[in-house]
Formats: sequence, structure tokens, C-alpha cells
Amino acid sequence: MRDILSFHNRSDMISLAGGLPAYESLPVADMARAAQRVLALHGPRALQYGTTEGYAPLRAWIANRLCRQGLPTRENQILITGGSQQAMDLIGRFLLQPGDIVLTTEPIYNGAIQCFELQNAKVQPIPTDSSGPIPDRLRSLLHPNRPCFRAGFTSLSRPTLGPEKRPALLYLLPTLGNPSGSIISEQRRSELAEIIDESAVPFLEEDPYGELFEGVRLPFIQSMTRTPGFLLGSFSKIVAPSLRIGWIRADEDRIQQLVPFKQTMDLHTNLLSQMILHQFLSDVDLDAHIASIKSLYAERRNAMLQEIRNQNIELTSLEAPQGGMFLWLKFPEGLNTDELARLALEEGVAFVPGSAFFAESQKGQRFARLNFTAADCDQIRTGIARLKVALDRLSVDSSRG
Amino acid sequence: MRDILSFHNRSDMISLAGGLPAYESLPVADMARAAQRVLALHGPRALQYGTTEGYAPLRAWIANRLCRQGLPTRENQILITGGSQQAMDLIGRFLLQPGDIVLTTEPIYNGAIQCFELQNAKVQPIPTDSSGPIPDRLRSLLHPNRPCFRAGFTSLSRPTLGPEKRPALLYLLPTLGNPSGSIISEQRRSELAEIIDESAVPFLEEDPYGELFEGVRLPFIQSMTRTPGFLLGSFSKIVAPSLRIGWIRADEDRIQQLVPFKQTMDLHTNLLSQMILHQFLSDVDLDAHIASIKSLYAERRNAMLQEIRNQNIELTSLEAPQGGMFLWLKFPEGLNTDELARLALEEGVAFVPGSAFFAESQKGQRFARLNFTAADCDQIRTGIARLKVALDRLSVDSSRG
Repeated sequence: MRDILSFHNRSDMISLAGGLPAYESLPVADMARAAQRVLALHGPRALQYGTTEGYAPLRAWIANRLCRQGLPTRENQILITGGSQQAMDLIGRFLLQPGDIVLTTEPIYNGAIQCFELQNAKVQPIPTDSSGPIPDRLRSLLHPNRPCFRAGFTSLSRPTLGPEKRPALLYLLPTLGNPSGSIISEQRRSELAEIIDESAVPFLEEDPYGELFEGVRLPFIQSMTRTPGFLLGSFSKIVAPSLRIGWIRADEDRIQQLVPFKQTMDLHTNLLSQMILHQFLSDVDLDAHIASIKSLYAERRNAMLQEIRNQNIELTSLEAPQGGMFLWLKFPEGLNTDELARLALEEGVAFVPGSAFFAESQKGQRFARLNFTAADCDQIRTGIARLKVALDRLSVDSSRG
Repeated sequence: MRDILSFHNRSDMISLAGGLPAYESLPVADMARAAQRVLALHGPRALQYGTTEGYAPLRAWIANRLCRQGLPTRENQILITGGSQQAMDLIGRFLLQPGDIVLTTEPIYNGAIQCFELQNAKVQPIPTDSSGPIPDRLRSLLHPNRPCFRAGFTSLSRPTLGPEKRPALLYLLPTLGNPSGSIISEQRRSELAEIIDESAVPFLEEDPYGELFEGVRLPFIQSMTRTPGFLLGSFSKIVAPSLRIGWIRADEDRIQQLVPFKQTMDLHTNLLSQMILHQFLSDVDLDAHIASIKSLYAERRNAMLQEIRNQNIELTSLEAPQGGMFLWLKFPEGLNTDELARLALEEGVAFVPGSAFFAESQKGQRFARLNFTAADCDQIRTGIARLKVALDRLSVDSSRG
């Protein structure tokens, strides 16, 4: 994936690979104004060390927004992190031991897989249907004495007798899953909350795209559980990724337990940027800003869908996601998107093959993730046309072989 | 230590505890100008995702400065990190396994100890004299078959037969060690370089205070070794800590091996701040800026030394450090600085007791670290007077007990 993302710098290359926001959506003038205000108002305090927990007014702002989104939250339930990537890594270090099992749905964002793998934990997928993880399947995976858990363990790292290990973490991205755009329905969320409470499994809910959902906001699963869990969010998709500002919501005791880890990892998140972000959030109408991003992205998504149809690209399924940043394409049986990605690069278009989103990469062989936010509509149309050329080359190559 | 640092927000408290730069030294106007220029020149690129390695012009700037300081370095030998704390954590995760030994000198910065402990590695101190680590003692510690290594290991975590494990890392801070202000002499650096080359032990050299050294710059040990090692630096002490920008210098292959770890940890360091910092470094005369910081700090250090004499504070040793940010006080036998720190807080002055700087904390019982950079000269004098009151209360308490 790094190899593919590194093509971003080639001027003739159209990248549908990364998860980059549209350049047009990045609020340059407002951020410049916020930066000036922060340095004028706060002077050297904006350049000094900050607290590990994060800039208090920003923590309060996030808590307040979560309250308005139906999840009662106090300022000291928020820890500011270096993007939600660091939040994920922090929680992995806090909760996971080598050999631990993380239950999640597949396909899954490869940045999350990397965090779990760095802790030498293993990802175990939960079977899903169109509403999300299947409750009975999740319940049986959470049951501690199932023999199926033994698969994948070596006798060196696990005790060979005694009860099977319970999963150490349940990780879900309920709204606009990356890469598939999947949505866990409201009814299913409440069924999952019940199972989480029954099992008391540590539960990590990530919500990087919830603000980009076109439908009526669905409740956080955290708001339906009694068991305290972790909720991760980020400003990368709604304000500016360069700032690397994300957050963890948990109960106050857990936040205090996470703080020494965060302190060891980088003392604290960039304070100047936290202050600029908070100033920006105070100065602008964020909801209007998000609405304009959603409208731009809907236009680009529709352009991509239309061009896929115009080019007669053969797919097994193609659903329009209800927001977010990606199309998730399923090609006919036998097509290998790793091969296709290589040919596509030669034709001047980059995307991420499905193999990047599965713990067992061959499961993703028929899939591809295409970003529709970073390139404009003309580039998207050219990119899809180039993808079609690569597909034609691929079928010629395979009919020869 | 966190408890002590948390007193920073009390208005009547004088903190000599943290390692905070002087507020007066933080370049507010220059940073505001740099922020405006970056957003005007680079527009949305300054708000977009960046590369994991870091902002190329900043990497080149650092490489160029190292070249001028006698350590030939190319741009792609630099990885930008979230301060040198993250650099340390990254290298710990890259190199250390549970039970590994890290050789270092004591006293040692507690942030470093925390990184090693988070990897479940053990710190083993190297005996030192006034020139630095004693070469013969280091050589024997690096020898792989010494029985003395067994102490501290449990039979569960280590093999009970076969050769003893070699230390996994040698960590040194050769110029202005934190907290003691120690300097490894030039002659000793070259002797250590020879031992490093003989043993091929992974070597980590940190240099957060080298730019604040009042003497003639001493060569990096890295510039004397043939074995590639790691050098860490930071802009926290010479520009602004809120930005959390540090760096690792290593050979190109190692940098490429570190990149996936950095990517998993937080994708990349805040790009807007990297660009603002680079603009600042391009616009100002950094050497003049550093000279003014050093002159301010020398004045404050001298005020603290003078007031310690004026107050007749009884010490076993007190040496004026050749720069940096701290005095390292050694009190007479039997005095407990953990106790003293508690009484001092009651009197309205905070400092860090020596116990924070030793893996076996009781070894630091007679020591105290006093910061002379964050408070101004008047506050320093008041702080030392309050320390004297606390000392008098402590001796009354112990004569009663």
C-alpha cells in the first residue's frame, strides 16, 4: 500500500488510492486566521509544553459535541491523540498481549490491522450480513470455551490445557466502514450492545466517517451499552489531516490509565495545532463546513459511479456508499486486483487492491477500493477510463496465459 | 513526577520541576509570520496528509545542519518524529524485546526509562567517572558471557542454559546529561566509539541539549564510530516544545525499517507544524536565537547558584552545569528528597526528587533536580528561599522523629 501511495507525487498519475480529503475542502483561510488569533491571544503559551491529556477547551468542545450527538460525555473523558491512528495504537498497547485475539469485521482498514499486529495480536473476523456482525456468531465467538479458537495458535505461545482464551478486544467501525462503506443498522447496534454487556468484552468503536454519513445519524453503540468502552474519533476527515488530531472517549478511570502510555509515547499531542483547531472550531460553522464537504463528495462519488457504468466495467456488485470516501468494487471470480493494480499504475491510475483489507490477504483478491474525494470529477473520469484499459489488458494477458 | 508537574497551573506555585523553556525565549512573532507564509505559499498542501518520513525540506535542513556539525548526513537519513520522546519510543519498539538489557548511565531522564520499561526491557547502569562511562566497565558489560547478568532475570523469562544475553542497546546522552549536566569528554567519546565498533552493540545517542552547551561543541560519538547507530534530536529546547518535532538520524536502510513502525504509530508527524518550523528556520538566524537563549539561561542559572549560597543551603556537591536547563543538587547523607519535595510543595516550590532518575529509585534519595529556565530570576530567588524553609522544616521533623 505504501508503494501505491508513494505514486501521489507523480504529476501524470491519478490517485484513487489514499483516503485524502479534497484539497478544495481544506479550510486554508480560516486556519490562517485561527493561527494568528491563537498566537495573538495566547502568545508563548501556544509554543510551550502542554498537558498529556490534551488542550482542555478542545477536550470540552469534543465532549460537548458528543453530548449533542446523544452520548453524554464530560471533558475529562476525552484524551487527545496524534490522529485516530495513534489512538488505535495506544489502545492496542494498553489492552493487547502477544497472542491475543481481536474480533472485528472484514474487510478492515489496514492501519488497524497493523496496530493489532504490532502487538502480536491476531485478528479474527466476525461473520456479517447486510445489517452488520451476526449476533449469534458474535456471541459464540465471545464464548470462552470453543475449540475453534485453537486454530492459529502455536503450542509455544499458548497453554495447551485449560479454557480457551477469550477475545481481548472487539473492534467495530459501525458507520461507513473503511473500505466497504458498510453500515451497522440501528436495530443491530442495540443487539450488539446487549452482547457486549453480557460478555463484558473490551469494546472499541471507531467513528472517523460518521460526520460524512448522508443519512440520519445512527446512535453510537457506546450510547447503548452499560459496559464502559472506547470511542475513537478524528478531525482528519472533517477539518485537516495534516494536524494529526484525534481523540479517545472512555470513562475517566480508563483515561487516567491511558495517560502514562500517551506520555511515554510522545508526552502530548502538538499543542499549537490543538489550539488552532479549537480556535477554528469556535470561529466557523462546522456543520455548514461539513455539509459543503458532503455535497462535494456526493458529486464526485456520483461521477465515479456514472463513469464505471459508461465504461462498462464488469462488476459482481457495486453499491453506492451513503457517504464517506470510497467505492468498494467486487470484480468477477478469478480476477486478481493485485495484478490489476500493477497494470493500472502503468496506465496512470492508482487504487488499493482488496488484499490490503483482509488479515488473510487472498480473501481480498476480487476487491478494490477506489477513493472518490481527492481527485476532481474530470480526473475521476480519466482515472476510471485508465482502469478500463488496465482491465482490458488484464483479460488479454489471462486469455494468453 | 506527573503530580509535581501538575502544580504548574497553580498561580502561587513556583515550579523548578519541569524542563520548560523560558516563556520569553519562545518566538511568538516569528512563528506567527511563518504560519502565515506557509498557508499563503502552500495553501491546502499544508493541511493535507504528509509522508511518514517527514517534510522533505525539513529533513534536508536537519541533515545540512548535522553536516556542518561534523556528521555527514543525507536527507533520507532523517526521520521526523513527534518529539524525541516518540523517537525513543519508536527505537525501543524497533529494537527491544521483553527482558532485554539497555545499558546506560545513571542518573537518567525518566522519560527514557519509561520507554524502555514499556518494552519490558531492563536498564543496567554503566559505572562512570568524571569523563563519562568507564571504558573497561562498559567493555565487560558488553561481554556476552558474564554471570553477573543473571541477576534480575527470572527463570521464566530467560533460558537457564547457554550464553548470557548481550545487551540489546547502549543509550547515551553525551552532552549535558539530564538531570546531572554531565559531559562525556572528547577523549572518552573516542574510547567509547572504539568499544561500540568492537562489540557492534546497537547504539542510541541523544542530543536534546547539545545546542545549549556553553563550551566548544564536542563531536557526536556517531561521527567516531564505523557501526551505524541512531542519533536523536529535537526542536523542543531551541524553538518550541508545543510543536512536538524531533528526529532520528540513522543509515538509510534503518530509516526505511523504522518507517512502517512510525506509520503504525501515527501515520506521520503534524505536517502543518513541520512546514511552519521549516519556514521559521529559513527566515530567522537560528544561531543568534540560540545565543540569546543561552545568555538568558546563564543569567538564571547564576541567580539560582547565588541564591543557594545566600541561603546557606547545605549540599555535598554543587557544580555549575555548562549549559542546559538544570541544577543537580546532592544533599548530605540521610536527607530524603521525596520527603523534601512534599514539604517544598506546601511551601510553594516544586522540584523533581532524584528518585525519578534511577531505575532503583532509592539511589536518588539524596538528589534533586532544579530547573532554572522556566522561572525568572526573582521567582528563582523566591523559590530557593522557600526550599530553604522546607529544608529547615525537614530537619526539625527528622530531629523530632
